[in-house]
Amino acid sequence: MTVALIENYIAGKWTAGASPAEDVVSAVDGSVVAQSSTKGINFAAVLDHARNVGGPALRKMTFSERAAMLKALGAAIMERKEELYEINGWSGATRRDGWSDIEGGAGTLFAMASKGKIELPEGHLIVDGPVERLSREGTFVGQHVYTPLQGAAIHINAFNFPVWGMLEKLGPTLLAGMPAVVKPATPTAYLAEKAVRIMLETGLLPEGAVQLIAGSAGDLLDHVTGQDVVAFTGSASTAGKLRTHPRVIAEGTRFVAEQDSLNSCVLGPDATPDSPEFDLFVKEVVREMTVKAGQKCTAIRRAFVPAALLDTVQAAIATALAKVQVGNPSEKETRMGALVSLAQREDVREKVKLLMQDAKLVYGSLETVDVLGADLGKGAFLSPILLRCETPATAKYIHDVEAFGPVSTVMPYDTLEGAIEYCKLGKGSLVMSVFTASNEVAADVVMNAGAFHGRIAFINRDNAAESTGHGSPLPVLVHGGPGRAGGGEELGGIRSVKHYMQRTAIQATPEMLSAVTRTWQPGAPVDSAAPHPFRLKFGELEIGKTVETEARTITLEDIEHFAHFTGDTFYAHMDEEAAKANPFFPGRVAHGYLILSFAAGLFVSPEPGPVLANYGLEGLRFEKPVSPGDAIKVRLTAKSKKSRNADYGEVEWDVLVTNQEDAPVARYTLLTMNAK
Amino acid sequence: MTVALIENYIAGKWTAGASPAEDVVSAVDGSVVAQSSTKGINFAAVLDHARNVGGPALRKMTFSERAAMLKALGAAIMERKEELYEINGWSGATRRDGWSDIEGGAGTLFAMASKGKIELPEGHLIVDGPVERLSREGTFVGQHVYTPLQGAAIHINAFNFPVWGMLEKLGPTLLAGMPAVVKPATPTAYLAEKAVRIMLETGLLPEGAVQLIAGSAGDLLDHVTGQDVVAFTGSASTAGKLRTHPRVIAEGTRFVAEQDSLNSCVLGPDATPDSPEFDLFVKEVVREMTVKAGQKCTAIRRAFVPAALLDTVQAAIATALAKVQVGNPSEKETRMGALVSLAQREDVREKVKLLMQDAKLVYGSLETVDVLGADLGKGAFLSPILLRCETPATAKYIHDVEAFGPVSTVMPYDTLEGAIEYCKLGKGSLVMSVFTASNEVAADVVMNAGAFHGRIAFINRDNAAESTGHGSPLPVLVHGGPGRAGGGEELGGIRSVKHYMQRTAIQATPEMLSAVTRTWQPGAPVDSAAPHPFRLKFGELEIGKTVETEARTITLEDIEHFAHFTGDTFYAHMDEEAAKANPFFPGRVAHGYLILSFAAGLFVSPEPGPVLANYGLEGLRFEKPVSPGDAIKVRLTAKSKKSRNADYGEVEWDVLVTNQEDAPVARYTLLTMNAK
Repeated sequence: MTVALIENYIAGKWTAGASPAEDVVSAVDGSVVAQSSTKGINFAAVLDHARNVGGPALRKMTFSERAAMLKALGAAIMERKEELYEINGWSGATRRDGWSDIEGGAGTLFAMASKGKIELPEGHLIVDGPVERLSREGTFVGQHVYTPLQGAAIHINAFNFPVWGMLEKLGPTLLAGMPAVVKPATPTAYLAEKAVRIMLETGLLPEGAVQLIAGSAGDLLDHVTGQDVVAFTGSASTAGKLRTHPRVIAEGTRFVAEQDSLNSCVLGPDATPDSPEFDLFVKEVVREMTVKAGQKCTAIRRAFVPAALLDTVQAAIATALAKVQVGNPSEKETRMGALVSLAQREDVREKVKLLMQDAKLVYGSLETVDVLGADLGKGAFLSPILLRCETPATAKYIHDVEAFGPVSTVMPYDTLEGAIEYCKLGKGSLVMSVFTASNEVAADVVMNAGAFHGRIAFINRDNAAESTGHGSPLPVLVHGGPGRAGGGEELGGIRSVKHYMQRTAIQATPEMLSAVTRTWQPGAPVDSAAPHPFRLKFGELEIGKTVETEARTITLEDIEHFAHFTGDTFYAHMDEEAAKANPFFPGRVAHGYLILSFAAGLFVSPEPGPVLANYGLEGLRFEKPVSPGDAIKVRLTAKSKKSRNADYGEVEWDVLVTNQEDAPVARYTLLTMNAK
Repeated sequence: MTVALIENYIAGKWTAGASPAEDVVSAVDGSVVAQSSTKGINFAAVLDHARNVGGPALRKMTFSERAAMLKALGAAIMERKEELYEINGWSGATRRDGWSDIEGGAGTLFAMASKGKIELPEGHLIVDGPVERLSREGTFVGQHVYTPLQGAAIHINAFNFPVWGMLEKLGPTLLAGMPAVVKPATPTAYLAEKAVRIMLETGLLPEGAVQLIAGSAGDLLDHVTGQDVVAFTGSASTAGKLRTHPRVIAEGTRFVAEQDSLNSCVLGPDATPDSPEFDLFVKEVVREMTVKAGQKCTAIRRAFVPAALLDTVQAAIATALAKVQVGNPSEKETRMGALVSLAQREDVREKVKLLMQDAKLVYGSLETVDVLGADLGKGAFLSPILLRCETPATAKYIHDVEAFGPVSTVMPYDTLEGAIEYCKLGKGSLVMSVFTASNEVAADVVMNAGAFHGRIAFINRDNAAESTGHGSPLPVLVHGGPGRAGGGEELGGIRSVKHYMQRTAIQATPEMLSAVTRTWQPGAPVDSAAPHPFRLKFGELEIGKTVETEARTITLEDIEHFAHFTGDTFYAHMDEEAAKANPFFPGRVAHGYLILSFAAGLFVSPEPGPVLANYGLEGLRFEKPVSPGDAIKVRLTAKSKKSRNADYGEVEWDVLVTNQEDAPVARYTLLTMNAK
């Protein structure tokens, strides 16, 4: 096997670090498979390049352009995935482990691209929340917007998911419009480097958008500013050091960490040995222990079981574990590969020895395991280890020490309340799962354990077939946890994009706010000149373009006619006496849908034209009843636009229906699809 | 004058700290006005009391109960405000200064109460964002919720706004359901203590909800956990120490800081000496320099002016400052009071000396000032100080050193781009204001300077009369800033409440998710048994209660009739050929509003009953065209409920309209007001 030199990608060039390089060895047989070095790199210049070249280039792109780029990057990874699978085994990972890393990584880019395309607005800033009226007359209003940070995002990643772990941070960062400096963990940096090469070779990443430091980050943090973000995944001790770095503190650099987590899994108090939840629980514990050889920040470390079921559960897990073949990932029969390194195995053994002060080892062995197609002496293989702790309430290590390998502990509980208290002894976790068919159990767990967890999964007979399981962070849900887990949040759809942006409250006139957000606001000027706004193509239509209609009187006859035609003979429309007794009506009133329908009749432009369809409506409020004899009129104003594809775009219209006294009777946002 | 002993409120008792107590002196004459001590307090027990007594009591209350409590606490402050004004002068503050502190504080409670009542749901958890479909069949779905943290909120406040600064943190904390331990700054702790007494004497605060430590916080931070929050306002150096406290780091305690800020104010490039913006700018700089004697974290420290206007602006500011009478706050003519202490004055003098390495002093004096009704030797009086720096691009101190007093520096700029770069040299600020009448300037500033600011105010001829100005944080807008400003966020309406809660992603079946969020989700079971859900009173109506209607065929005649009746003769309804040419329609189709109207006709229950009014509609989407001959039917399901007052409550209904093939043609949420 040739030894690959992992290069750094710095300021537009693949750059070898200076000698001597560090050896990177195979987890399977200890042979040197690659070398890495970052010696001689000017880290201050790396950050400057990101800030001065990558940032401006990304910020010039719109959200939808960035989303399209992410989609293409994901597609490139998928197209060339076999190049990644080829070297995936070096890390001890099976092909199935690699699937969640490689294809899971590409899938995360796809999901972020899709969220970006659908949920983000046209242009460069995100509006957060409604306009806040700050004054009586409405000349002074407020609204929040997010704009991209102008520094560099420094991603310090863990060894276990070199591709997914990189892409789940890169997706939101690039979508936000921020350049990244990626520092993979050295033991698996060859996978990150290959994935970066694949993405760069698409030619789609603007210069400076992504740089790669494959090895020590040197004095990088000595050069951060308040516009940079450090996003770290790894141990709590390293996180603590980085978080308290004097420059990070002095500059107020944003720091996001996903660190240790003693995730728990609870078999619900409603489960019996015959219930589907029992089997699902056992299967999940075994899966979480063995996938990636348990080297997952979301893996189940603590499994809580109704006391009466502890023996049965333990036996079932042990039986299932006995079927797990450990071995060389290149062997077909291998179900669990190696840990990433001999040092990692040694660390796990040390941690298990601590745990054994609280628990007994009931399955597996720290010393030996039957290994298929590899040598236990040279590869970082370890048997799955099941521990049993009878006394979770008083345990000293079980809730505190994370053995980052195929290790889990089963423990008994008496009441659900007690089980929740045990979970909370983990002091904050990424994820907790509960195998239950009881809605009450679920509601209880969320209210009482929610504050300690970033994610809680409820799995049962009704959703197990479709469930993604305890251990899978999903791009649309937040990943992170409070306390020990680091207090950070990643993913969660557009939520994750905002970690790389700054929220700013804007105070201005409605007109100015409209100009800033490119969304017309009530109170801003309108343009009511001809032509009718529905006669303008998507590209010609300006925000603020308005039609003000004639008035139409609504007669009692109209109301009666509408009632009988539609079948809506609600008493408030039909019976003067009963309507008067209603606290909200002065007497018989027009149907809300009659008002909407007449409003459309007033503002419609009947001939074929750019407006293709009304596809919906938002935020309708009836503000004042319309009595027979009232005359309604409509002001319809182009509020915002968003391109959808080469042919169409979505237009939001602000619609205000007023009566003969100019008092608002209804307001809503109309949604149309317009031709380009 | 008698010397007040400031007591601590600990575990349900007003407690004097042990001797010797620390003297607290009057800013006006140096006399001892109060004493404080926290000696002998067991800080670990304080936190335990909050966590074990206050937290559970608050979490038992619903959001609306907590909101009502905040409103009553604000009312108590207003009712007894004169007791606070009476001692307000000790701090050097004028009555007008006290107004923003005392009545501004009560106003913040009112605003949070109102937001809580209107925007928060019934019950105990906040739903964040829509349900995410995680699987093909829809049995496995996800949604985010916020639940209250289960620790204590530790509020470490600054001296300058002892009431507002306390209440702007307390409002969101209590609304979230989290207990607080308040540590005011000792120099003005008498005001905080009085305000806490007023609130406690309402009898409305549950035991343990608020405790007060009036003095040193001792070893408090040695006892924090990952469920606590430390919210700090003060200097960057203190913030840095607290933020890196080993226990804070080890436990992953949430830390929110609002620290230093060199806020800037820009006179727009469009301004001339004759423009209203010129005068508004001058007035604002003067106001920000003199209110609270410039001891405001939001005060204007750096004022940027088009180079050609610098002399004119400087002269105008100097003229206005000359009219500012400095003196004893008890004197009617006094426009600016004293700094909080002689030490504070000394600090400001030292800082100004640094600034003078970049700038010349062009108004005021560090040594002397004409003081009304007090003695310059004994009181902490200082003249307003205007500095002028010609070279902002190369200044060493102007963008870095905050003189926390009546001090500001005027500086010239050449281009808007240049002015923005100067603002950014502050490395992150709480607020920036721009006096401009140009929409283009506003849009430019937001995109280019937004990332460095928590708030940007645009003030001009159109909104100045109603503007709350550069320096006023508002309860509905976020207050905080990136980088040097601490990276924290406070206020911003419900956004601030979430700082005291944990966001958790929930994965479950739709049924279970409905039980957790008390909001019916599509896919969860429905109860279609009689009676019709519109016959049930608010209290009787259960989530999931449903009516499934008969079908109604929509004929071409119906469509024609509706078109002529309403006036909506859009071609897609009227002209087969033209409709076919539309990319979204198979031929002539029914109006969306016809579908809505017929749907209402199908599900309505005409006789008087608990449903009083349909007050609106949300999220309407037409999913599939309805052609003549199609038959529509409706499933209407109670989705969620929220009590509004003793008589009524709001009910959200999930409405699904399907055709004869059970394909959805329209979905929306219907809003009704129901009697109790």
